[in-house]
Amino acid sequence: MIEKLNHIAIAVPNLEDAISMYRNVLGAEVTEPLDLPEHGVRVAFVELENTKVELLLPIGENSPITSYLNKNASGGMHHICYEVSDIIEARDKLLNNGMRILGGSEPKIGAHGKPVLFLHPKDFCGTLIELEQV
Amino acid sequence: MIEKLNHIAIAVPNLEDAISMYRNVLGAEVTEPLDLPEHGVRVAFVELENTKVELLLPIGENSPITSYLNKNASGGMHHICYEVSDIIEARDKLLNNGMRILGGSEPKIGAHGKPVLFLHPKDFCGTLIELEQV
Repeated sequence: MIEKLNHIAIAVPNLEDAISMYRNVLGAEVTEPLDLPEHGVRVAFVELENTKVELLLPIGENSPITSYLNKNASGGMHHICYEVSDIIEARDKLLNNGMRILGGSEPKIGAHGKPVLFLHPKDFCGTLIELEQV
Repeated sequence: MIEKLNHIAIAVPNLEDAISMYRNVLGAEVTEPLDLPEHGVRVAFVELENTKVELLLPIGENSPITSYLNKNASGGMHHICYEVSDIIEARDKLLNNGMRILGGSEPKIGAHGKPVLFLHPKDFCGTLIELEQV
């Protein structure tokens, strides 16, 4: 069902500092920051050879990242996104296995314009998992 | 400097349950568990198309995973491993930038038989980073 690792998301308290660190200290390619106000985040992507790391800064009120940073002031790993080819089939399999989906079981359009679901960390070894249909 | 994402490591309180969840609920290929007593862990790998997820259970005394699970009983994302082609060059660049390396600055042989360094989370957006020379 899950195929590729689409990205790891890291919540950061200062996006410019995080971009500078990944570019200048770790020597990676990083995209320019992009505001996604409807998702409450400003993002930049570290482009690795086989996948990407999404750097997430909360913006606006009610950002889903704010509470994470309140608990982890330096930032940290926020979620992992796995790709699936059919998100409805994936959703039904998860529900049949008693897994919990956050925010209702209808896929939403995620930050990359594709259907996504977020899965309950307690059901998945304490990790927040995003499934994205590609 | 960093090239590929080698793996994400997830600390788990029960390895059999984690393997079963990744295999049977998320439909992924997972290797059989392997004990690495010199590293204080039992591991299994979720084999994705472009990278892998390392499931880590602490074994023995003084496992580096025990304190993480004491703080995160359900488990969670423990570290990210990036590949570098020359770990000494990477180490020197990090030290020249004032970054802190955990456990001294000499690379050690990691769980996969290759030279590794672990970097201080406070210098890297709250994420524990492993660098592995491949």
